[in-house]
Amino acid sequence: MTVCTFDKLVIIGVGLIGGSLARALRERAGAARCGRIVGVGRSRASVERALALGVVDEVAALDDDAGLAAALAGADFVLLAAPVAQTQPLLERIAAFLDTQTIVTDAGSTKSDVVGAARAALGARAAQFVPGHPIAGRESSGVEAALPDLYVGRNVVLCPLAENRPQDVERIESLWRATGAIVSTMSHEQHDRVFASVSHLPHLLSFALVERILNTPDAALKFSFAAGGFRDFTRIAASSPEMWRDVCLANREALVDELDGYTDVLARLRAAIVAGDGAALEAVFARSREARRQWQERGAQAGVPVGLAPK
Amino acid sequence: MTVCTFDKLVIIGVGLIGGSLARALRERAGAARCGRIVGVGRSRASVERALALGVVDEVAALDDDAGLAAALAGADFVLLAAPVAQTQPLLERIAAFLDTQTIVTDAGSTKSDVVGAARAALGARAAQFVPGHPIAGRESSGVEAALPDLYVGRNVVLCPLAENRPQDVERIESLWRATGAIVSTMSHEQHDRVFASVSHLPHLLSFALVERILNTPDAALKFSFAAGGFRDFTRIAASSPEMWRDVCLANREALVDELDGYTDVLARLRAAIVAGDGAALEAVFARSREARRQWQERGAQAGVPVGLAPK
Repeated sequence: MTVCTFDKLVIIGVGLIGGSLARALRERAGAARCGRIVGVGRSRASVERALALGVVDEVAALDDDAGLAAALAGADFVLLAAPVAQTQPLLERIAAFLDTQTIVTDAGSTKSDVVGAARAALGARAAQFVPGHPIAGRESSGVEAALPDLYVGRNVVLCPLAENRPQDVERIESLWRATGAIVSTMSHEQHDRVFASVSHLPHLLSFALVERILNTPDAALKFSFAAGGFRDFTRIAASSPEMWRDVCLANREALVDELDGYTDVLARLRAAIVAGDGAALEAVFARSREARRQWQERGAQAGVPVGLAPK
Repeated sequence: MTVCTFDKLVIIGVGLIGGSLARALRERAGAARCGRIVGVGRSRASVERALALGVVDEVAALDDDAGLAAALAGADFVLLAAPVAQTQPLLERIAAFLDTQTIVTDAGSTKSDVVGAARAALGARAAQFVPGHPIAGRESSGVEAALPDLYVGRNVVLCPLAENRPQDVERIESLWRATGAIVSTMSHEQHDRVFASVSHLPHLLSFALVERILNTPDAALKFSFAAGGFRDFTRIAASSPEMWRDVCLANREALVDELDGYTDVLARLRAAIVAGDGAALEAVFARSREARRQWQERGAQAGVPVGLAPK
């Protein structure tokens, strides 16, 4: 196991993601030689719960200059674990208090927009910012849901900037590895294409199916005969409308590309149905089933990310 | 519980669906005052297993005139539980041996095509045919997977023909009710619209997502970061390519209508993304989530079909 050593970690937004990082570093045997963990929230009240639960050692409020300065002084790491749309204002807020040796990272599920926000907010000091994305479940939220083993076997993707120092990227890697996560790096463009494809688009498609049914006069009858296929397909339509609105807009370029490619596939399938071309349909369905089966089998093997394993 | 009384039931195709009907009628206490249950297969060998398992009392082969005639003589009910594309040839095959009092039904997942097949094969005797569709899981198949309680709390939809005698429709209702199923009736057009919407379209969309990913140069990378949302969304892409090819073609009119309506929703969402219209996106996502939540809650209540309940 990677041991991560630090004197101070500052977590801005101590919910499921930030709280689980804190708990992992402190509670997993041998994960880290921990210094202080400081929780920062919009107000002190918003982080008191994390303090009461013992997830963080001390707290500070974003709107308190002196408290924020003290919190950030001498920090090894700062993790932004707030909604991705807040990245730029948060970085602007902390920029003046940031020590030159502090490494900042984030947990946002889109990365090109975050890179833009970091360059806009930090200028040349964006070199201190290593963009990151832990791929962890978000069905529950809040610090009460934080778990020390949330990241075990999960993927964390880092999207280093050209100006990041290699040793800083390695330090962020060691921070996440200490939680039990599997760390990969790729460009932010590639990250956004990958997640547009396997996460953002399916969410959009799932919401869209329910919307389509609602738009028809016999919606109630349809829902009353919906069964297992509908349930699985629309499980992700139970996700947060606000979060997915932000993701769709933050990653609009890659998402629209994926959507257009998908719409082309639908047009091809529609043509095959209209033409009665069973062979073309069966070829697509068989290829998809086989790829999906292989994906599931790879995930069921030991040593690959839990995110890939069948539930 | 409804008690179904009969002297002879003939099941053509004794797999999961046909075998579970037989087991339900015989093994569920008080379900039926059963006479003989006869299994008919393409050959005797294909139904020997059902006989060995005690699911049926006797067997016959479709290609044996004398055996088939004996099997059908005096039958109260005939259930066709073979792939839906075989409906017309099967009805043509049995027509000459069918007693005038025998009621025939089927288990196909599309109905307009089955009605057409029945009229073509049986002519005026289509009055003896009551189209049906038990909505039951199909992840496992074969008579070994047959269960006496497969239909408990499940929906069975009947699509009676104008020429059916009301007492014949009631007899088929009582047959399914004896298995613990909840029986509804609707027109075959309505049936096909409903299932195009909540079942056939989601399957098509799920296959299409995997196909879209396969069509991109970084497919392997994308699959390696696919997680829970992808898993749920594509679970139904593990379904039988042959079955879904047949369903798409059998229900092409309703399915193309649903696909076009769905594509319109996607175009609307795409326009909102491109325009940066977060309010429009959030409105659709929130409406979908709420409808999905209500659907799930209704399903979790007692007395509604198990097919609606969360897994």
